[in-house]
Amino acid sequence: MEKKISSAVIKRLPRYYRYLSELLDQGIDRISSQELSSQMNVTASQIRQDLNNFGGFGQQGYGYNVEILKSEIGKILGLDRQYQVIILGAGNLGQALANYAGFEKRGFLVSAIFDVDENKIGMTVGNLEVHDMKGLSAFVKENPVDIAALTLPKAKASDVAKSLYAMEVHAFWNFAATDLDLPPDAVVENVHLAESLMRLSYNIAN
Amino acid sequence: MEKKISSAVIKRLPRYYRYLSELLDQGIDRISSQELSSQMNVTASQIRQDLNNFGGFGQQGYGYNVEILKSEIGKILGLDRQYQVIILGAGNLGQALANYAGFEKRGFLVSAIFDVDENKIGMTVGNLEVHDMKGLSAFVKENPVDIAALTLPKAKASDVAKSLYAMEVHAFWNFAATDLDLPPDAVVENVHLAESLMRLSYNIAN
Repeated sequence: MEKKISSAVIKRLPRYYRYLSELLDQGIDRISSQELSSQMNVTASQIRQDLNNFGGFGQQGYGYNVEILKSEIGKILGLDRQYQVIILGAGNLGQALANYAGFEKRGFLVSAIFDVDENKIGMTVGNLEVHDMKGLSAFVKENPVDIAALTLPKAKASDVAKSLYAMEVHAFWNFAATDLDLPPDAVVENVHLAESLMRLSYNIAN
Repeated sequence: MEKKISSAVIKRLPRYYRYLSELLDQGIDRISSQELSSQMNVTASQIRQDLNNFGGFGQQGYGYNVEILKSEIGKILGLDRQYQVIILGAGNLGQALANYAGFEKRGFLVSAIFDVDENKIGMTVGNLEVHDMKGLSAFVKENPVDIAALTLPKAKASDVAKSLYAMEVHAFWNFAATDLDLPPDAVVENVHLAESLMRLSYNIAN
């Protein structure tokens, strides 16, 4: 089934997942395409078309079963498993990621945070102690690591990513303002904040 | 000229701007489409097509004048002026934004940071003192505010955005995991970190 879903639909799935999670949190266990449409500000026909990809969960006169739909979308998004995450860089952004409880709820477990700064090493962030970056290689050998979140200065991010790739860490959540130079099978999700701010200024100016 | 540029090209401009800025920082004042192509991992013909939108800056045997091209793209992106930014929420993420020197370099000047937490009010972040959220309305009346960056819990973000909109602040950089409910002329740039993480897990899973 997963192969048939278009990339345009895939792009919209995280937003559906977020809304369905909120509905469940509110104790709502079924919803019509019309109701979802008015909440999400998307046409009901778009919603029906998108969610048709997931089989017969939308029923005439009943609507969608929120829990089943959320679970199906979660599977497609790879959220039916847990990921061990390490954070490189214990600055404000690294600390913000380490402290964000929402990630753990979705199966992203932060297992360690690293920095080179002696003033940060040994500090407690969330319930984690900041490790010396020198211990990174030993840590990765001894512990499963699925995702490395990079909140390092751009001058260092690419080298650290290359080292991690060589240690078999192949997925990166990159916050450094640079493109990582990695082999094509690396999975990289960039969060380029400066580019986001430029899109905002473009929309203000135009 | 600006009207003719397609939205697909516009989307790529922040990345061009970033590369051109880095070239200038390195003292490089001209570059061929081939060189830029290999650095940016985009085909040279795509680059020529995109940059043709900006007139005759690419010349046979000379390449692009980096400074002129950066300046032209900067104008389109609205970077030829300054923006006064306030940050709502002085948690780790708000502090990270306030401390990021790169924004000021591009004309985004953080003029104030607000929080409701008594433990944070009065604290110094970067070179700013954290203000009590109660003083927000008075501050906005007395000072120009172009952009509000929202690093608040999602339950509060939409209400604070509505209040700000009523105070004539119409541009929002939204980090809260919720869609703001604002009139259509509001300019909103969302940074939904949880959705970004889901795109990453989707790409790991598939």
